[in-house]
Amino acid sequence: MAATSDRPRLLTGDRPTGRLHLGHLVGSLRERVALQDSHACFNIVADLHTLTTRPRAKEIRELPQLVRDMVLDLLSVGVDPERTVIYLQSGVPAVYDLAILLQMLMPANRLEQLESVRDMAEAAAIGRDKPAPMSLGLLAYPVLQAADILMARAELVPVGGDNLAHVDIARELAARFNELYGELFVLPQARASRVPSLPGVGAAEDRGRKMSKSIGNAIWLVDDASEVQRKVGSLEDEGLVAFVDAFVADEDPRAELIEAARTGKVGAPAIREAICSAIEAELRPIRARRAELADERGRVEEILVDGTISAREVAYDTLQRVRELMGLEALWEGLVAATEARAEARKAPY
Amino acid sequence: MAATSDRPRLLTGDRPTGRLHLGHLVGSLRERVALQDSHACFNIVADLHTLTTRPRAKEIRELPQLVRDMVLDLLSVGVDPERTVIYLQSGVPAVYDLAILLQMLMPANRLEQLESVRDMAEAAAIGRDKPAPMSLGLLAYPVLQAADILMARAELVPVGGDNLAHVDIARELAARFNELYGELFVLPQARASRVPSLPGVGAAEDRGRKMSKSIGNAIWLVDDASEVQRKVGSLEDEGLVAFVDAFVADEDPRAELIEAARTGKVGAPAIREAICSAIEAELRPIRARRAELADERGRVEEILVDGTISAREVAYDTLQRVRELMGLEALWEGLVAATEARAEARKAPY
Repeated sequence: MAATSDRPRLLTGDRPTGRLHLGHLVGSLRERVALQDSHACFNIVADLHTLTTRPRAKEIRELPQLVRDMVLDLLSVGVDPERTVIYLQSGVPAVYDLAILLQMLMPANRLEQLESVRDMAEAAAIGRDKPAPMSLGLLAYPVLQAADILMARAELVPVGGDNLAHVDIARELAARFNELYGELFVLPQARASRVPSLPGVGAAEDRGRKMSKSIGNAIWLVDDASEVQRKVGSLEDEGLVAFVDAFVADEDPRAELIEAARTGKVGAPAIREAICSAIEAELRPIRARRAELADERGRVEEILVDGTISAREVAYDTLQRVRELMGLEALWEGLVAATEARAEARKAPY
Repeated sequence: MAATSDRPRLLTGDRPTGRLHLGHLVGSLRERVALQDSHACFNIVADLHTLTTRPRAKEIRELPQLVRDMVLDLLSVGVDPERTVIYLQSGVPAVYDLAILLQMLMPANRLEQLESVRDMAEAAAIGRDKPAPMSLGLLAYPVLQAADILMARAELVPVGGDNLAHVDIARELAARFNELYGELFVLPQARASRVPSLPGVGAAEDRGRKMSKSIGNAIWLVDDASEVQRKVGSLEDEGLVAFVDAFVADEDPRAELIEAARTGKVGAPAIREAICSAIEAELRPIRARRAELADERGRVEEILVDGTISAREVAYDTLQRVRELMGLEALWEGLVAATEARAEARKAPY
């Protein structure tokens, strides 16, 4: 199992707020799959993070389906449970402890200045009758994310552009912990994908924005060939260039096609066809794997449960070391030792 | 044990940052002892809360002694482990979980406006070469305190004046939780002591401030009679009146003596003598109990360990109900059930 290997560790993952799409594929999933050869990988299904903006009971009731769909998507693209610990964040109690302890080491104003947190608050307000004020949980989101990264003692964190700032927070917390209590954490490094994101598809205003679950301007991993074709049909100019850049695999034809698209040497229909054919080549085996896995009753759930149990061990081990270095373990052990000595003394002959 | 009785529950406690003093006695400890007859009591030794302002390793290394001294003080004044669960906050893992979940329900700006949090940040900066910026942990302090109160499902929270605002936070979180997920928490009520605090003793500038551990302008519970006399000797005018009000037990002589002090009918030396005699009557049995307990090796530690184990059960039970009402338990149980069904299916004959 990945967790017990000697390879450098990596953590990545997503909030289970909807199906994965091509933006995820190019921005993160491909890398996640490739890095399984060199790293011990952790893939978090970050359900607690959804509570920062979606804490309502009816939103939580959607989680079982969203979580299952997400793991199915991950397995379909090639995340391999033999090499990657796929786990449910809320099922790993030691992470809550670690997050509370790390909160002591992070200046509040550092978080208030983070654009990503503000953006999430804004996005969460969309479509609400009454936008909620930013919760403490949302402000503390990057520290909980740092707890995820540091509990796994991950050295590498493949991220989309949004989360670069959060890996900085994890680095700062790791450095601060090491400085205050002694060396424990390797400072995690962010790693951005060659193609961090895709433009959206659909109506003009949606194409102007990044492909996103919450906007819905996406080509989903579950879309079939005709749906992909229809959506690629909405792309124009720079959108086409971005898709060529993301999906034409070989560097030379890719550069040529981008040049041809920009100069008008090859027309949009031919470029769309090249894009569709490249996407289809990538999605076909993913679709086949998904169908196979979805058929096998309980397989997805078993992988997630087993992964969560593995993650618990890793997290508990890290928490123990954290408590030891901080001195909290000595405090508790001292109390227990005195109590045991008293129990021993009771046994002494009168 | 208190935790399992049907009485309404009560939670109170202190940060183990130093010995307890007469301000604690009149502001909280007397009430804590008296309410043991009517309530199932929880007394938290809030070591995690010390990390909000004292996170350094050398500060944490002082905790074992500070924690032992605090429990010894509590037992000496009459907090009774048969009726009060005395427990160590950091030894109750479910509280961290609960705090993280409650953070999702608390607007960050509500906390930023709290005077108490600002005051703690200022107090923490005193005597430091470089005052630290306010940590997220300090900002989140009232939510962690709410988690303590709500994990015990306490209905009553005896507090000094400083903490009234924090019980409001716990009430708001309880109400918000009940509204979002279903009725679980009784809204906790704060209860202030008749005498919430005492003026300090010693030099003029210390007498002008509230008696406080951090300033050191205190008469400690461990002070002997001559030390008490020396410190009471520093009191004048309104200080004397406040001490008469706090320590002369019967209402009628108290009112008379206050009147006499204000009109100058009785001189300061006679009033000081009355105060010293009242304090000595209260401290003498406390001193005797402390000496007895301190002598019994491991007794204090055993009480704290047993109390912490009791608190763990209560906290875990509350956390389970919280997770059930939120829907997080259904998420996990669903995964486990599907996994078990798969394991069952494996056993079927081919």
